[in-house]
Amino acid sequence: MRTMAIRLRYEGTNYHGWQIQKDQSTVAEEVERALSRLAGAPVKVVGCGRTDAGVHAERYCASFRWDATIPAERLPLAMNALLPRDIAVMDAMDAPEDFNAILSCQKKEYTYRIYNTRLRDPFWEKRAWFYPQPLDEELMARGARAFVGTHDFKAVRSVGTETRTTIRTIYDFEVERQGPMISLRVSADGFLYNQVRAMTGTLVYCSLGKLIPEEIPALLERGDRCLTGPTAPPQGLYMTRIWYPEPVGSFMQRD
Amino acid sequence: MRTMAIRLRYEGTNYHGWQIQKDQSTVAEEVERALSRLAGAPVKVVGCGRTDAGVHAERYCASFRWDATIPAERLPLAMNALLPRDIAVMDAMDAPEDFNAILSCQKKEYTYRIYNTRLRDPFWEKRAWFYPQPLDEELMARGARAFVGTHDFKAVRSVGTETRTTIRTIYDFEVERQGPMISLRVSADGFLYNQVRAMTGTLVYCSLGKLIPEEIPALLERGDRCLTGPTAPPQGLYMTRIWYPEPVGSFMQRD
Repeated sequence: MRTMAIRLRYEGTNYHGWQIQKDQSTVAEEVERALSRLAGAPVKVVGCGRTDAGVHAERYCASFRWDATIPAERLPLAMNALLPRDIAVMDAMDAPEDFNAILSCQKKEYTYRIYNTRLRDPFWEKRAWFYPQPLDEELMARGARAFVGTHDFKAVRSVGTETRTTIRTIYDFEVERQGPMISLRVSADGFLYNQVRAMTGTLVYCSLGKLIPEEIPALLERGDRCLTGPTAPPQGLYMTRIWYPEPVGSFMQRD
Repeated sequence: MRTMAIRLRYEGTNYHGWQIQKDQSTVAEEVERALSRLAGAPVKVVGCGRTDAGVHAERYCASFRWDATIPAERLPLAMNALLPRDIAVMDAMDAPEDFNAILSCQKKEYTYRIYNTRLRDPFWEKRAWFYPQPLDEELMARGARAFVGTHDFKAVRSVGTETRTTIRTIYDFEVERQGPMISLRVSADGFLYNQVRAMTGTLVYCSLGKLIPEEIPALLERGDRCLTGPTAPPQGLYMTRIWYPEPVGSFMQRD
C-alpha cells in the first residue's frame, strides 16, 4: 500500500474544524470524500492536528494510505477538481511507509492575527480578531517571551480533550505589528486544546495592564485557567508551519 | 437639511451589488437601513456607482441628506454597530449642499485582480479571478496602454443600462504582477456597464495571443462586442478610488 502526504491550505470559515464530526461539515470529511472518489474505495486521512471551527490553515499536512496509482504530481489538480473551493491541495508526495501526519510531527507553528484599529475592516472580518482598543505590541512581545521554554501549560488550555501530559515546549513566540495588523507567531513541539487562543488572550491582558508580562511563568506554575486571559476567537488563528523528519520535512517547507 | 458624504468599504460576496433591487440583498439597502435607524426616519442614499453582485469596494462614496444631529466624526462607529460586518463606514463628513456622490464624481479607479498560478488559493477564492494558465503581464500591459484615451467603448460593455453616450476617457491603465497576483488598475471619467470586466477579458485574450494589443483601438472603432474578449467574473473587481471637487476630494483620499 502507498503512504502519501499532502500539503493543504484552507479557509476554515465554513467548517467545524478539521476533525470529522457527526452531522457537522469538516475539512477532513471533504478531503476523505475527494480521496475516496479518486480511489473508488473509502480512504481515511490523518491530519497533523485538530483545528477548531473557523480556524484557518496556510499549511496543513494530512497523510493516508491507499492503492490508487495516480502519480503524486497529478494529485493536487485531481483533488482540487473535487474539493470545495475553500480547501486546496497544494502539493503531494509518496511518503515513507511509517509516516503519519500527527505521530511523525516534530514541531508546529501557529500564527494569530489581531486587526487592531478603531474601525473594523470588512475584508478581515472572518480572518482576524478585530480589536478596536489600542494594543501595545511591545508589552505583548514581552509576555510572549515569558511563555518560551518548557512549562506545564494547563493554565492556558481549555479542558475537553484528553492528553497524557500538559507539559509542552515553546521554541519561539514573536509579536510583530504591520500597520493595523498584529501577528503572533508561536512554535512548539505541540499545543494543548485552545492553547494559542488562550495565550493570545493573555497577551492582550498584558497590553491592557491586567497582567504583568513577567508574571506569566508564575501563573503557569499555579496552573489556574482563571488567572490568565480569555480565549481569543477562532477566526484569527492560522496553522502556518509544520516540521517532520525528512523527506516530508522539506516537502512541507516548499514554496 | 444636512448633506453628508461617507466613505465605505465592503466585501461584496454576499450582496447583489450596490443598487437597491426588489427581493435581493444589496449594500445600499443595508446602508439605508442603518441610516434610517439612526435618523428615526427614512433616509435615501446615492452611491458613486453601481457595482455588480460579488464586486468589492476598498473605497466607495455615498451621499445623503438628513436632519439628524449626530456629529460626522461619530457617524462611522454608530453606523458600524448597525451594519453587517462585511460593510463598514470608514469616514464621514458634512458636504456642500449640492454634493451628490454620483453627479459630482470626476474620476473613478477600479482594480481587477487575477490570481494567476497553477493551483488556486482558498484565501483568494471570492476576491480574485483564479486563472490557472500562465498569463503574460507584459502583453497585457501593452493592451492596457492601447485602451488609454478618449474612445467609444461600446465594444467593451454589456448592454442593459441606458446611457447618453458610450464615449469615455481612460486616463491611466496599468498592469502589475506581484508573485501570482496580477493587478489591473484603471481610471476614467466614467465606465460603461461591465466595461472593466470586458477590458480585463480582452487583455487576457491579448496574453493568449487571440488578439494583438495594438489592434485594440481598431476594435473599439468597429464597436462590435463580439470581437473583444469575454467578461471577466465579478469577484476580481474592486472599486479603489474616486475623485471629487474639494472638500470631498481630499476626504476620499484620506488614509
